Amino acid sequence: MMATENRRDFLLVFSAAVFLGLLSITFVLIWVLQYREGLGWDGALAEFNWHPVLIITGFIFLHGIAIVVYRLPWTWQCSKLTMKFIHAGLHLVAFICAVIAMVAVFDFHNGAKIPNMYSLHSWLGLIALILYSLQLVLGVGMFLIPITPVTWRAAFMPLHVFGGLLLFGSVIAVALMGITEKLIFGLNNPKYKDLPPEAIFTNVLGLLLVVFGILIVWIATRPSWKRPSDQILHTLHTNGGGEDNTKVGPALAQLSDGADAEPSADVRRRINKFDDQTN
Amino acid sequence: MMATENRRDFLLVFSAAVFLGLLSITFVLIWVLQYREGLGWDGALAEFNWHPVLIITGFIFLHGIAIVVYRLPWTWQCSKLTMKFIHAGLHLVAFICAVIAMVAVFDFHNGAKIPNMYSLHSWLGLIALILYSLQLVLGVGMFLIPITPVTWRAAFMPLHVFGGLLLFGSVIAVALMGITEKLIFGLNNPKYKDLPPEAIFTNVLGLLLVVFGILIVWIATRPSWKRPSDQILHTLHTNGGGEDNTKVGPALAQLSDGADAEPSADVRRRINKFDDQTN
Repeated sequence: MMATENRRDFLLVFSAAVFLGLLSITFVLIWVLQYREGLGWDGALAEFNWHPVLIITGFIFLHGIAIVVYRLPWTWQCSKLTMKFIHAGLHLVAFICAVIAMVAVFDFHNGAKIPNMYSLHSWLGLIALILYSLQLVLGVGMFLIPITPVTWRAAFMPLHVFGGLLLFGSVIAVALMGITEKLIFGLNNPKYKDLPPEAIFTNVLGLLLVVFGILIVWIATRPSWKRPSDQILHTLHTNGGGEDNTKVGPALAQLSDGADAEPSADVRRRINKFDDQTN
Repeated sequence: MMATENRRDFLLVFSAAVFLGLLSITFVLIWVLQYREGLGWDGALAEFNWHPVLIITGFIFLHGIAIVVYRLPWTWQCSKLTMKFIHAGLHLVAFICAVIAMVAVFDFHNGAKIPNMYSLHSWLGLIALILYSLQLVLGVGMFLIPITPVTWRAAFMPLHVFGGLLLFGSVIAVALMGITEKLIFGLNNPKYKDLPPEAIFTNVLGLLLVVFGILIVWIATRPSWKRPSDQILHTLHTNGGGEDNTKVGPALAQLSDGADAEPSADVRRRINKFDDQTN
């Protein structure tokens, strides 16, 4: 389990992440309400403004919280299945926010006769959204549908974790490109290069998003901050790799390459098996 | 050690990464030589063009290769110390490229009376360069100076690895913001939004950089692709955590939190100790 000091460190970093996330949401709201045209669904700039608000609230903040939700010590009394539903549910809300955010931009572009999908920001943003939906569908299919074989789950887990963190980082990078575009196009007299207060304010928003992202990825990649069952099973795994072969037989043999490549894959497989039996 | 199939997988992914990296360099050269003003050191646009060329060649390609250089199977006969010098040397060349790339932009801005350091791209780029230089100094101080205590090395390694991958990803994100800026400012009649061939070509360059980055991070985070000594020591570690305490005594006790948090830290410490004894 988690030592007191370790738990305190987690709570410190997690609180900082939540604070920065909420501060980013506050910043983007101030940006569109104070400096820009406000929010509306008018096919014009007030509709465009939903794009940064929904991306930062949903596709960045909720996305980040969804990633680390298993790490919250006060959820460890809940079953793993419950936590999987919360994890998937938060990602689903994030996905819906991202889709509405895209619709807002297309609507605005069509109304203002601006071409769609020309910028690197739009290309990478759409690719990220498509891969995110794929990650969501594969995640549900692999880890929430009970009939999925444990060998599939084990083989897919490293890709799910890598892909998840990659997508999270990519969404932040794409948001930074979007902020850059908006400040160049939106600021005239004074221009972006004259660094008016709005430019400084929004640059700071970009920095906040970066630090939020760093903290989330840091939390997600600290082994000792994992849910205790994962840690216990990790210890079991690392102390007795041999006995597993006799227990799992062909399944593990099939996985031998993957198991070498990803010690955690084997652990996860047993966690999932455990979940299937208990939930 | 590495099974044949596993080794083949590594070579496949590594070759793809090198191919994409070299293709990105080709793309940026074609961009500045064919579509833009070429290369020169004239205080004008031909000097600016060194910025993307040096960033992609040095701060992205060499940076990425430096990260995975320990993974190359044909280097496993070299001592770890030799590989550390190559790792640090490649990072140093990448750093010098990045510094010259910055100088080129400042020179160009000053000549064209464009303010410096106003954009989010410039803020994040400068922060990344400063942190990269810090990473370089700390890396040399921690892992190349023989007198550094092994406990410090162990405690610092997780931060070195996390910080290194984070900086690599950040540099790519900042490059994508730079491409966005350059296409908006540089393209007039047709504009960026009209998607002329140069815009498509440079958007594709952005995609190439992203895929290169993904492959490098994938290589760096696969445990079974590590240098064999690391793998052997990892096995030793995971099979006999108890005996270590008696061997290392106070050093490990001091590290107990860190060792829990990062199983690899303990392994690395022993690797470094081993290196110090043998090199």
